[in-house]
Amino acid sequence: MKATALAHSNTALIKYLGKKDEQLIIPMNNSISITIDALSTITTVEFSPQYTEDVFILNDKKATGQAYQRVVKHLDLLRQEAQRKLKAKVVSKNNFPTAMGLASSASGFAALTVAVCAALGLKKTPQELSMLSRQGSGSSCRSIFGGFVEWVKDDGTGKSYAIQLADEDWWDLRDIVLILEEKEQRQYSTREAMRLSMKTSPFFAARLAATESNLDKMRRAIKKRDFTLLGTVAEHDCLLMHAVALTSNPWQLFWTSATVKMMKLVPQLREKGLPCYFTIDSGANMHLLTLPEHQESILAELEKHHFIKKIVCARLAGGATIISDHLF
Amino acid sequence: MKATALAHSNTALIKYLGKKDEQLIIPMNNSISITIDALSTITTVEFSPQYTEDVFILNDKKATGQAYQRVVKHLDLLRQEAQRKLKAKVVSKNNFPTAMGLASSASGFAALTVAVCAALGLKKTPQELSMLSRQGSGSSCRSIFGGFVEWVKDDGTGKSYAIQLADEDWWDLRDIVLILEEKEQRQYSTREAMRLSMKTSPFFAARLAATESNLDKMRRAIKKRDFTLLGTVAEHDCLLMHAVALTSNPWQLFWTSATVKMMKLVPQLREKGLPCYFTIDSGANMHLLTLPEHQESILAELEKHHFIKKIVCARLAGGATIISDHLF
Repeated sequence: MKATALAHSNTALIKYLGKKDEQLIIPMNNSISITIDALSTITTVEFSPQYTEDVFILNDKKATGQAYQRVVKHLDLLRQEAQRKLKAKVVSKNNFPTAMGLASSASGFAALTVAVCAALGLKKTPQELSMLSRQGSGSSCRSIFGGFVEWVKDDGTGKSYAIQLADEDWWDLRDIVLILEEKEQRQYSTREAMRLSMKTSPFFAARLAATESNLDKMRRAIKKRDFTLLGTVAEHDCLLMHAVALTSNPWQLFWTSATVKMMKLVPQLREKGLPCYFTIDSGANMHLLTLPEHQESILAELEKHHFIKKIVCARLAGGATIISDHLF
Repeated sequence: MKATALAHSNTALIKYLGKKDEQLIIPMNNSISITIDALSTITTVEFSPQYTEDVFILNDKKATGQAYQRVVKHLDLLRQEAQRKLKAKVVSKNNFPTAMGLASSASGFAALTVAVCAALGLKKTPQELSMLSRQGSGSSCRSIFGGFVEWVKDDGTGKSYAIQLADEDWWDLRDIVLILEEKEQRQYSTREAMRLSMKTSPFFAARLAATESNLDKMRRAIKKRDFTLLGTVAEHDCLLMHAVALTSNPWQLFWTSATVKMMKLVPQLREKGLPCYFTIDSGANMHLLTLPEHQESILAELEKHHFIKKIVCARLAGGATIISDHLF
């Protein structure tokens, strides 16, 4: 009763903002992401009567507190699904050395879900896996799939899961991940920030309304491999989310001075003939989207700026998968 | 046919954003400001048959281009009002040494309007002066009055002008003007930025709707001398405006890295027991609103931060007025 899974992080091009159901994690709007190879998680799970309680070891450290509780809650959900009661040992590793303020819960919960289902012998379709993974961490449902992925808020029967719009071979997009701040200095967790935005920003409803046409544009951009449209819409959607956060009560500004410097640099790079667009999650770091033929020239430009602490070049990755090398 | 006027700048607590009528400068929403003594303009106007064309000398330099054309257009409006055709010499000085990216058109057009009306012998009430001044530069209509001022978008008869909510002696508010950037590095003028916001931001309508209740709160804050309410609403309204700009197409970010550093510092000052709230116009500099008893402690805190280039402490000022010392 042991299995190991590998899952990749994803970068949201149309962001998930606000929950219709806090418990089940049903989002207020569909979202679209690319699954990227920059940050990945490998997780080994073993269920055995030898364990008297669940153990979760993340990056060689025994997890406690909230991180541990979230994993146990997810194990409980999947144990209930399999009608099993065995306790588990979970060992998980991110391929990123330190906590960079990048979302690791997406790859983490996708890997956990896939590994646990395999270990418990639960035969699930990728869609079912994404429904289960969603309940651990919303955006993890997108990491079940590779390439271009849409999280459907409600398929008409009340079910919410991710679907693949195009696989990782459809279009060789590049995501230059710019680490501008090594530690998160956030006042609120992403969950709490979203809740505040939904409850208090006078722009929340207008953002939700604008999202419908942005989702259409993004699907079209992917279908037609229209990079300008994809980038423009991703940048705009990112700014809609940050503008909602800024107008919440209390206001939330995720950017640091380096983020602002980098934001202003991006249109300058475009003016130099280097097509690239940014997107920023609820943190200070940035994803710079570009095409393979411009990556080297952009990297050369980025090297001039000392406020960029680390650069990680990502390509599109495949979906979450079972692998044979166990971590223990 | 010579007169000199003094007018002060104003800081908008509820900002003016978008025009219903571009030509007449009728705003989409009421706005509320304080008239401050930090930046003032003295303008001397002389009409005489000796002038064969209008001349405008601003800060000892002959103005040309757009700055000159705006003044001539305003002179034409006032000449038409007085049914005179004489050309004029206009000499204007701001008490601020250099262009700091702070709005000088508010004090500038208020002083120009008052001086020209006096020179041409036009007897106008302050309300009429504000209606005339508005057509030169929208926010200048608020600088006709001192203290706390509301610009009424439409009084029900189609007229738009400023009214005084309370005079400068009502409440000893302080406006610490923080010069973070000495030069404006803007992609668009305030006028063009507003036009883009109104046309393209999906948040423009929601901002307009939110403004009604913010105006109510601000009037109440002034009436009750409720500093927390005044500051909270001013900070929120400022963020609403910047969020609208951020979500326009193309997006506009007026802040620099220093602005962001300063924005993050303000809640920290409040946590230290120093009541203060920021407001930022369509530029990188900041107005820090506070009460007299906290000004010294706040200044001591601000001294620690080298990203602040210059600090100007402002008090509330009176309205635009005729003075006897001519500039020429």
